[in-house]
Amino acid sequence: MTNKDAHTPASSQMNGAFTAPQGEKPQGEGKPIGWHKAYVEGSRPDLRVPVRQVHLTNGQSVTLYDTSGPYTDPGIDTDVRRGLPALRENWILARGDTEEYAGRPVRPEDDGIKHTSPRGGLRNLDAVFPGRPRQPRRSRDGKAVTQLAYARRGEITPEMEFVAVRENVLPEVVREEIAAGRAVLPANVNHPETEPMIIGKRFLVKVNANIGNSAVTSSIEEEVEKMTWATRWGADTVMDLSTGRNIHTTREWVLRNSPVPIGTVPLYQALEKVDGRAEELTWEIYKDTVIEQAEQGVDYMTVHAGVRLPYVPLTANRKTGIVSRGGSIMAAWCLAHHKESFLYENFEELCEILAAYDVTYSLGDGLRPGSIADANDEAQFAELGTLGELNRIAKRFHVQTMIEGPGHVPMHKIKENIDLQQEICDEAPFYTLGPLTTDVAPAYDHITSGIGAAMIAWWGTAMLCYVTPKEHLGLPHRDDVKTGVITYKIAAHAADLAKGHPGAQEWDDALSDARFEFRWEDQFNLALDPDTAREFHDETLPAEPAKTAHFCSMCGPKFCSMKISQDIRREHGGSQAEVEAGMAQKSKEFAASGNRVYLPVAD
Amino acid sequence: MTNKDAHTPASSQMNGAFTAPQGEKPQGEGKPIGWHKAYVEGSRPDLRVPVRQVHLTNGQSVTLYDTSGPYTDPGIDTDVRRGLPALRENWILARGDTEEYAGRPVRPEDDGIKHTSPRGGLRNLDAVFPGRPRQPRRSRDGKAVTQLAYARRGEITPEMEFVAVRENVLPEVVREEIAAGRAVLPANVNHPETEPMIIGKRFLVKVNANIGNSAVTSSIEEEVEKMTWATRWGADTVMDLSTGRNIHTTREWVLRNSPVPIGTVPLYQALEKVDGRAEELTWEIYKDTVIEQAEQGVDYMTVHAGVRLPYVPLTANRKTGIVSRGGSIMAAWCLAHHKESFLYENFEELCEILAAYDVTYSLGDGLRPGSIADANDEAQFAELGTLGELNRIAKRFHVQTMIEGPGHVPMHKIKENIDLQQEICDEAPFYTLGPLTTDVAPAYDHITSGIGAAMIAWWGTAMLCYVTPKEHLGLPHRDDVKTGVITYKIAAHAADLAKGHPGAQEWDDALSDARFEFRWEDQFNLALDPDTAREFHDETLPAEPAKTAHFCSMCGPKFCSMKISQDIRREHGGSQAEVEAGMAQKSKEFAASGNRVYLPVAD
Repeated sequence: MTNKDAHTPASSQMNGAFTAPQGEKPQGEGKPIGWHKAYVEGSRPDLRVPVRQVHLTNGQSVTLYDTSGPYTDPGIDTDVRRGLPALRENWILARGDTEEYAGRPVRPEDDGIKHTSPRGGLRNLDAVFPGRPRQPRRSRDGKAVTQLAYARRGEITPEMEFVAVRENVLPEVVREEIAAGRAVLPANVNHPETEPMIIGKRFLVKVNANIGNSAVTSSIEEEVEKMTWATRWGADTVMDLSTGRNIHTTREWVLRNSPVPIGTVPLYQALEKVDGRAEELTWEIYKDTVIEQAEQGVDYMTVHAGVRLPYVPLTANRKTGIVSRGGSIMAAWCLAHHKESFLYENFEELCEILAAYDVTYSLGDGLRPGSIADANDEAQFAELGTLGELNRIAKRFHVQTMIEGPGHVPMHKIKENIDLQQEICDEAPFYTLGPLTTDVAPAYDHITSGIGAAMIAWWGTAMLCYVTPKEHLGLPHRDDVKTGVITYKIAAHAADLAKGHPGAQEWDDALSDARFEFRWEDQFNLALDPDTAREFHDETLPAEPAKTAHFCSMCGPKFCSMKISQDIRREHGGSQAEVEAGMAQKSKEFAASGNRVYLPVAD
Repeated sequence: MTNKDAHTPASSQMNGAFTAPQGEKPQGEGKPIGWHKAYVEGSRPDLRVPVRQVHLTNGQSVTLYDTSGPYTDPGIDTDVRRGLPALRENWILARGDTEEYAGRPVRPEDDGIKHTSPRGGLRNLDAVFPGRPRQPRRSRDGKAVTQLAYARRGEITPEMEFVAVRENVLPEVVREEIAAGRAVLPANVNHPETEPMIIGKRFLVKVNANIGNSAVTSSIEEEVEKMTWATRWGADTVMDLSTGRNIHTTREWVLRNSPVPIGTVPLYQALEKVDGRAEELTWEIYKDTVIEQAEQGVDYMTVHAGVRLPYVPLTANRKTGIVSRGGSIMAAWCLAHHKESFLYENFEELCEILAAYDVTYSLGDGLRPGSIADANDEAQFAELGTLGELNRIAKRFHVQTMIEGPGHVPMHKIKENIDLQQEICDEAPFYTLGPLTTDVAPAYDHITSGIGAAMIAWWGTAMLCYVTPKEHLGLPHRDDVKTGVITYKIAAHAADLAKGHPGAQEWDDALSDARFEFRWEDQFNLALDPDTAREFHDETLPAEPAKTAHFCSMCGPKFCSMKISQDIRREHGGSQAEVEAGMAQKSKEFAASGNRVYLPVAD
């Protein structure tokens, strides 16, 4: 599946999108118009960065960032029961700073099972991941193995180079941003299947999709399918927020089949282990859960260590209290014991654990506002102050760290969130949920939040956690996942444009060119969602000729502005330069005629 | 359908939404939980302002702005063949400054019919509107009959009072804003069916929905249905952009059945009359079309008088040329004749015509950008300068005027649009299409543009023209119209919140209260789209008990943050005040214990 581009070094063509030089023919003779998977090779043959190559009918081609993994490569035979190839395995081994070990034994209660059966557990054995068993790894001899540690030592890892090619920047820029703590490259040494990606304000804005079964509904198969589906539409990371049964097993399947970093909230599983009784949680149970998940390969973990005992009373007058699940669990624990949070108290030990696997922190905003009324209040910003403190501690342990953000925030209060976060957290990447800009539209919260997401990303947020239409109402199905991802890809790309991200506009330009020239097939293929664009077009004008028609069903042939605009060009000169010259001449004549100002018309 | 509220004078309860005083019982004994149509009476019995009254399960009620017209009033027997009651007729007659006259005879070519048949035309006679024939009216003896003229004379019309009640402001504020040209109240004397509404930055942000058949598809019935459907979901005005056959007749049906102001682009019909050949357009044909439409009752008209000959060459280097249909038609005419636009040249005569019927100008942005690449360019801003000039001329003739805006604009270039428009056009209301913040998502342009719409409205845009998912691809169906309207209601309301519009947040607060207290039915009834919210909820948890369950299908009972939050309140004190006191006490104890700062944990 490697084509000519595979030998093209990273260039300005790689940043989000590019239009190939004029006149270049489509890659690979006889390749059909449309898009296919391609790779750009780095400095070594095992460093091949996937891209989505769109071949246009005018012979040009456009390269887009690709998150879909090996699934869209017909040359790779994927099988969810075997898992994905371990892309990063040799890189990790070559560093020689980690070692395999026996690992923590998997117990029935990891899957929420209380009583052992004669066969050693009630677990449905068919559900156990059948792929190649691999011993977990961790750092050896106290070595600092995180990407942050490497970056600080001035070393550019293959992961960093992979990201540099993907983002079209120099590898040194990647290293610098990671070293400064302004970007994270989430890549657990036990998740070698992941294709390296970076989260930071100097790079393309990223999108996270949440999946996860709950006590009420959904199965392992569904979750794996949602993960591959979400990445197919552009999710850059996926969080597995499962809370029901088979939580360990579901995560194993998701990790072994995921080409993107996987995030979790270990607290959810820890709570399952104490049967949902928050007050029975202990640091030991939590720590054990973190190790369990780190050994599986979770790339980043949400830790609600900023929900401190003294902050809980600050939420008493709120309209909607504490809406973060993790936040409310920790608040309940703090109040039940009237003790400071065990996460806050044991944060340094947690740093040591995360550092050993290169798990990235996502410091959770457990006190984020759950309604417009509660936005930017004392509770929220008190916690943010603590997240700043924890961020600095994490950095001492070389743990990569990003900071989570709200929530429900009206437009005029959004900027304060990112500005404060950047100041308090030393520019650590901000990772926000929305924010939702109004509370009144359940069933449309992908839109209420897409508005806020685009704005906060423009102002510097590095990753956006998607919101689906089902937010506040139910668990998202496959279609909801797609709608959420597409909405957030729009927000992210709109922000890339507004930030003036180099190369971002080339994608828009390619699509607008196709639009102006009535290249319908190219419009579809360049669209964020080609299938739906084509389907909508065909609903009104299904016939094949309509796809080359120089008008569309909105206005019909007589009223098409683009057609008239083209006619103007055609009738008043052949090339654009000629049109311009011709028009300029006419304009001069007009000016010469006195440039008539408005003359009152008598009537 | 009048309930107790009908006798409540305008109060703070009327602004967007309100929560009735604590403890007040639902209006009308035995009235079911849910929402129904109600009216608030003004200073006279024939001034009854419709509202949507939502009765909550906790005995409170919330009043929302209502655009749905008599269709949602079971006490009024509506019939599309008869048309709506002429609400404003007596007000118009009482002013005594207009007179009936024979009017321009309707001709077959008004409906795009070229040859007369033995029965006087090819028109399908069944399609002719059968409702009460009414002679058209216009100003008598050169009287200035527009709302602007009245406002300038210091007179508060019933229309202004109606609007004041609707917006919960003093009538004097309405008069002042209209007099200053900062707001328009579009209300043709020949459209007495319309329920007065106002467009201006000091009022709630409004949403326009476009309907209209095209040469390719759709029928009269479909368009009337789309109009009532759009207003049911909250469209404040509707533009009939029909371009095909039966254009006159379709408009008649739409006007006679519309409770909201109707806008048009007369140029589209004029072009039909010359068989789509732009160069054959004349001022006489255009003028005749404007009179035809003014006599029917069109409330505002888009006039592309700012597309001047010298500006056309400025578009030559654009990525997507001229994308406004009206703009491209006028550009083609200008170039074909190499003459200044006949709209610009005859603008004062046009002002006299519009003034006679109180038709409001919507000065079209014919050179708006059609792609990210073309945003804020010389052509666009040159035209804006001319719109400022035309706005001042229109005001001399007492013609109410708003200014149209773009289009496709990346987020960082949006603010310049509204700031320049407000400066150049003396704060005349800005009426924008989106703007779309990226070009790459055909089929999702309600979202790409909803982002821009929310932002530009926050910064002062008075009305937003909706964009449906079908934009760039096809003609919207009923569902697309709904999606477009709901998306834009979200953008408008998010902007009302961000502007700090008095009372806007009370709607959000009511819904968030219902959410925190697990009042599912109230959440549905308060939602912008109750049907879809309920449907999404029921998809996962259809059973009736789930609608009173203290958790939802997202997290299940154990993980519900709202439930845990409530448990915290319950377990640590009865009332909120007690919780707070209790928590504050605990917090003090915590502080007294030394307010332990973070202690490194040895490991």
